[in-house]
Amino acid sequence: MTYCVGVKLDEGLIFASDSRTHAGVDNYSKFCKMTVFDRAGDRVLVLLSSGGLAATQTVITLLRRRAAGEAPHIWSVDSMCDVANLVSDAMRDIERRDGPFLETGGLKFNASFILGGQIAGEEMRLFRIYAEGNFIEAGTDTNFLQTGEAKYGKPILDLGVGSGATLEDATKCVLVSFDSTMLSNLSVGMPIDLLCYVRDSLRVTMKRRFGEGDVYFDALTRQWLEGTRKVFRALPPLEW
Amino acid sequence: MTYCVGVKLDEGLIFASDSRTHAGVDNYSKFCKMTVFDRAGDRVLVLLSSGGLAATQTVITLLRRRAAGEAPHIWSVDSMCDVANLVSDAMRDIERRDGPFLETGGLKFNASFILGGQIAGEEMRLFRIYAEGNFIEAGTDTNFLQTGEAKYGKPILDLGVGSGATLEDATKCVLVSFDSTMLSNLSVGMPIDLLCYVRDSLRVTMKRRFGEGDVYFDALTRQWLEGTRKVFRALPPLEW
Repeated sequence: MTYCVGVKLDEGLIFASDSRTHAGVDNYSKFCKMTVFDRAGDRVLVLLSSGGLAATQTVITLLRRRAAGEAPHIWSVDSMCDVANLVSDAMRDIERRDGPFLETGGLKFNASFILGGQIAGEEMRLFRIYAEGNFIEAGTDTNFLQTGEAKYGKPILDLGVGSGATLEDATKCVLVSFDSTMLSNLSVGMPIDLLCYVRDSLRVTMKRRFGEGDVYFDALTRQWLEGTRKVFRALPPLEW
Repeated sequence: MTYCVGVKLDEGLIFASDSRTHAGVDNYSKFCKMTVFDRAGDRVLVLLSSGGLAATQTVITLLRRRAAGEAPHIWSVDSMCDVANLVSDAMRDIERRDGPFLETGGLKFNASFILGGQIAGEEMRLFRIYAEGNFIEAGTDTNFLQTGEAKYGKPILDLGVGSGATLEDATKCVLVSFDSTMLSNLSVGMPIDLLCYVRDSLRVTMKRRFGEGDVYFDALTRQWLEGTRKVFRALPPLEW
């Protein structure tokens, strides 16, 4: 499993991904699931990967290789929607190549992505690309997208990442959402990769990794626990 | 789907269940999933039902019919563990009767229960009985048990229902956990049935139903939302 979150706020975008991969509980590893393509002043593209690692790594490799060749590619297109289509094309090409062989082992091609960012001349955008290569875009009613083990962390996001939330408060909320998920699902694990993008900045200035024992992360989750216990105590007493 | 929670605290037990049943999204109904057998001064037994309604209703009916006949039955046994075995026996008898016919429709017998309470002369106990009739008992490391759509509501319970929590604070936490779940899963719905049992009281004094628009429930969830937003704002600022 995996846990990835993308959030679209008035102030900017937030991306976060865990880094645990596993084949059963007796074989787990760390791999970064966040890929950033950025050219200051022109574009920032962030991809968060879910699904089989062989599939997602190969899609990213193909995007990079195509970016070194003839346009259209991720550096040439002028809309995030075109980037989503390029990712989708790469996914479908890999599936055509690998899919029939996976089937002989009873497996299915399985890769999905959260894609977000901004290209000069266009607004920030945030997409979820499904395993079949089709995709949806976040809007004002639903301004965050999750992949992988989404359920444990969703109520926390519902509380704190409305589109009017500040980038700072919403980022803390995203980290708490990861903590909640990791407490319940062994297949989601540290380090957590985090990137905050400021609207119209067209550059990456805030990117950070949180590993086991991270002093900030531990303080954050401890204070969240203490704070919410106070909230429970302050809630109105039950009437029977 | 369904959402049921049983919590075992030093001070007592909490039971809560939603009341939505459905066959697809175009056919849903309300049925109470909480069954209470109590005889003041002697025993309080609470069952929360998950699974197919035909299965769970028939198990409860069989327990009632057997209780009117020869011992051993739910009023005669002197341990909660024996009650769990009686529920298990009833489940297995119904499965033997209905199972082969369900199979012809591609279905499986599907009933599971949270069982808790206290019988005079014994401590309070809390069990989860699986569809196969085997069961586990809550302890100090894991003092709450959920059935049905458990994931959305679990992080909230992790925050607020440690075994040392007060009955009052933990009850508010359970209600918030239901609110979080209902926000994300249409197959969990009001009314919510709630029962709090005070350790060694051997009687039911606190039982309440929360329906749509319940003034207390609405105030509780609104204040939880406001309180947690304050907690997010007060968390330490991110260092990049």
